[in-house]
Amino acid sequence: MIVVGIDPGLARVGYGVISRGDRHPTPLAFGCIETESGRSTGERLREIYDRISALLDEYEPAWVAVEQLFFTRNVTSAMHVSEARGVLLLAAEQRSIPIAEYTPNQIKQAVTGSGRAEKQQVQEMMRRLLRLAEIPKPDDAADGLAVALCHIHTLR
Amino acid sequence: MIVVGIDPGLARVGYGVISRGDRHPTPLAFGCIETESGRSTGERLREIYDRISALLDEYEPAWVAVEQLFFTRNVTSAMHVSEARGVLLLAAEQRSIPIAEYTPNQIKQAVTGSGRAEKQQVQEMMRRLLRLAEIPKPDDAADGLAVALCHIHTLR
Repeated sequence: MIVVGIDPGLARVGYGVISRGDRHPTPLAFGCIETESGRSTGERLREIYDRISALLDEYEPAWVAVEQLFFTRNVTSAMHVSEARGVLLLAAEQRSIPIAEYTPNQIKQAVTGSGRAEKQQVQEMMRRLLRLAEIPKPDDAADGLAVALCHIHTLR
Repeated sequence: MIVVGIDPGLARVGYGVISRGDRHPTPLAFGCIETESGRSTGERLREIYDRISALLDEYEPAWVAVEQLFFTRNVTSAMHVSEARGVLLLAAEQRSIPIAEYTPNQIKQAVTGSGRAEKQQVQEMMRRLLRLAEIPKPDDAADGLAVALCHIHTLR
């Protein structure tokens, strides 16, 4: 069973593709979709939509897990993240892929055992749990992997 | 030249289709896309995307004008509106239709002459300027028409 985890944003969308496996979860792909700040919001949303759609078509995941904004002080930033979430959820829905949503604290709790873990702890746990030689880079990719792994742990 | 105006939301998307005309703007269609609160966010976004896409294909507008959230105290509501905005902007972008964005105050200013106009004043001005027998209903449809008319006034 394959899960695609997504950390949404308008400028950067982190993603991680993980196969649950029989004994250990295996990372199949991870990375970050970056969009140029000089382009219009519509163009940036279209790029995010096209690239995530291609990823979903390539891996045909059983689930898409998306990080949920729970609370924020920066309303403008939250609105941009939500616009990106809109096209990401649409891409999954159009393929009838079920969507799971997790708050940042739920993700940290699931992968480190503590909802208050630091970013570095999450990244180091990703490296260990996914048996990678190095911490996955960039940070957004590690976040995408963490959402996917959170969902795999939750399913177990 | 045809302009589609959109007042975005997850539960209700108001829209208005206006032909600029040589002498007077003419409303071609207006209404409200409603989505059921019992359905998932993904399903609701897909319904909004499908219905707006059909509207854009039917009228082939030269512009899409969208109301922009400028400031809000309710962050959760702002995030849902922004998710809907995301799929609306995507639908326009996929058809290479240019997108114009206006804040609520800009829209009120353009159609009533005052950025502080009440909702009823905006609705009554819509009725007069578009030569309708009655105030357009529901409210969301009147708001969609107002965004479209604001853009037509701005272009002049």
